[in-house]
Amino acid sequence: MSRKTQPAMGLDTTLASVIKPTLLLHRTRVLANIDAMARKAVANGIRFRPHFKTHQSAEIGDWFRAAGVTAITVSSVSMANYFADHGWADITIAFPINLREIEQIDALAARVDLHLLADAPAAIDFLSVRLTHEVNLWIEVDSGYRRSGVAWDDEPALKALADSLSRSERLHLRGVLAHAGNTYGARSLSEVRSIHDATVARMTHARDLLQAMTGDAALEISIGDTPACSMLASLPGVDEMRPGNFVFYDLMQLQIGACAEADISVAVACPVVAKYPARRELVLYGGAIHLSKESLTRPDGGSDFGHVALFGPDDWGPSLPGVHLRSLSQEHGIVAVDPGMWAEVDRSVDIGDLVAVLPVHSCLTANLLRRYQTLDGAVIAMAPVL
Amino acid sequence: MSRKTQPAMGLDTTLASVIKPTLLLHRTRVLANIDAMARKAVANGIRFRPHFKTHQSAEIGDWFRAAGVTAITVSSVSMANYFADHGWADITIAFPINLREIEQIDALAARVDLHLLADAPAAIDFLSVRLTHEVNLWIEVDSGYRRSGVAWDDEPALKALADSLSRSERLHLRGVLAHAGNTYGARSLSEVRSIHDATVARMTHARDLLQAMTGDAALEISIGDTPACSMLASLPGVDEMRPGNFVFYDLMQLQIGACAEADISVAVACPVVAKYPARRELVLYGGAIHLSKESLTRPDGGSDFGHVALFGPDDWGPSLPGVHLRSLSQEHGIVAVDPGMWAEVDRSVDIGDLVAVLPVHSCLTANLLRRYQTLDGAVIAMAPVL
Repeated sequence: MSRKTQPAMGLDTTLASVIKPTLLLHRTRVLANIDAMARKAVANGIRFRPHFKTHQSAEIGDWFRAAGVTAITVSSVSMANYFADHGWADITIAFPINLREIEQIDALAARVDLHLLADAPAAIDFLSVRLTHEVNLWIEVDSGYRRSGVAWDDEPALKALADSLSRSERLHLRGVLAHAGNTYGARSLSEVRSIHDATVARMTHARDLLQAMTGDAALEISIGDTPACSMLASLPGVDEMRPGNFVFYDLMQLQIGACAEADISVAVACPVVAKYPARRELVLYGGAIHLSKESLTRPDGGSDFGHVALFGPDDWGPSLPGVHLRSLSQEHGIVAVDPGMWAEVDRSVDIGDLVAVLPVHSCLTANLLRRYQTLDGAVIAMAPVL
Repeated sequence: MSRKTQPAMGLDTTLASVIKPTLLLHRTRVLANIDAMARKAVANGIRFRPHFKTHQSAEIGDWFRAAGVTAITVSSVSMANYFADHGWADITIAFPINLREIEQIDALAARVDLHLLADAPAAIDFLSVRLTHEVNLWIEVDSGYRRSGVAWDDEPALKALADSLSRSERLHLRGVLAHAGNTYGARSLSEVRSIHDATVARMTHARDLLQAMTGDAALEISIGDTPACSMLASLPGVDEMRPGNFVFYDLMQLQIGACAEADISVAVACPVVAKYPARRELVLYGGAIHLSKESLTRPDGGSDFGHVALFGPDDWGPSLPGVHLRSLSQEHGIVAVDPGMWAEVDRSVDIGDLVAVLPVHSCLTANLLRRYQTLDGAVIAMAPVL
């Protein structure tokens, strides 16, 4: 009998039960990532409204709640409904309003404190006519990323939005919101800081214009990108932050400098199914339907779909230098090994073994695998496909 | 089936019920694609063993059955189990043997005529010891794609495989099998023909060597790529073909020349959620978790994640020239429009409307969306996440 009353499984026992690509979750790292970001928000006096699209899990949501989080961000109406069903009462849908879901949005507004984004008078007018419940509205500002949002310096467009809002009784303007996804192109702290400073200056400009137009002096500024929220110690001028990816991090964030490799808290355990010494390559059971086709570009122009680590007694170890996934088919992952590393890989890995793959983009990998397994064997459910 | 008793919905009615990204299936085109490939197999005297990883649907599988198909290909043990549960009794798992699933493989071998691939003596020896039921075995040959398989001209490796097989009682060698995925790099019929001819010549060489080594004069040659199977009228020297993607086709196949745009039988109906005249861009509700991040490379080096078509009265129309998805986030799809096309797009498309997105890689898009909706409103289920 075990000395403990309810012994947690050891990693060996957990891995012995893994027969196909499985998303492993390093709970200690996840909790540390949540804790660090929650503390930063408190230290800066900023509302922390984490984006839950990364994990899509009510149980992981509970870990945020334990860290004091009461407000969240999601990327779809379906995801808002899922988290509302799990007790979240203050939800921002950080996506342009989908007019076709107006009935679902109105029903959601009846049961939670709902925050929506708009950047078009037509959308605001549509909401004004169709909503029967009150919602909070944020003007989505394009601060330079060019994805969605009204251009930060387009004063006539901001005026048209303010005018539409002034005709609405159920929409309450809360402030300006942006996703500065352009920090994903940065490769250093100084680049991230420079993009972030420009973002805040531009949003402040738009916010000040809207305050003058509406007479509302309490409008807020909400930002969201994981690189700035992770790398900058202080975030002056910001009222709310909505990072999401930081809960897991991944190779993309590592490349930017937003995390250390030891902060990456998910990895895909993949069976090795073939080994080709003449090509210095392995084939993994682990392909595009497990990892996603998100890739990094290597210095030689090739693609990098993930890095490989071996399992130690307690968790996965550091990624093997000179080893990367060069190609993915639907279920195959092809691992290329540099000449100097082949002997070690050949010695350490046989067909039938498991290796850990650090994902390029953890949000997409989690979305594909749809459940987590902790290193001590617990299964953590995700939402059904949303 | 029930279309006579229950009148089919018109496309307008079907689209009126679509509120978020939805995978539409053009049944007439799917049936025509199946019929054309089945006829080609009969005309060539080749066994047609279609790959079901593209559709992952028992109901679509039934359409193949109606076309005379009795043998299928899948890419995982889970998928083999799903189709075995739906009445398929002759199944090839076209993936290197995953030793960690030996119990599941053995259980499957007890209930279907199972075909496995091997390219390593260690895998054959493992199967010999662990299987309690008989299976068919194909030697996977690398005919030049460099994904998996024994090199076609590696005589010592083929001899080692033949020796391992000679010691096994439950493994019955059936022939050599390859996926000539290198045809995906072709851009013309002559390139596809040249790669295919080399593939068949190399596989014939490997088959002949194995016949001499084993004394078995009845070994077969099985190929699988959609480009060759679609574009070549005759396939001499081939005993079995296993194409999968052709059931839907997609922009990747269109680029190769393996289909016409009017053969593409799936499209994602996506709500338009934003419109930016100054940038000549639209934003769709339809991102990486709906379409996948598979992309084509444009002549200018940019990425192309899908093409856009408008809906007519009965189906989606031809894709709009000069319009492509330039970028995908988790849920956002950014559509870039050439200057000459903006006026037409601006006139035809408003926020709240639906557009059809032709996917780059239909297998990955179907895998993400996990169900189909026919143009007349019927829902077709897929397997649960496998």
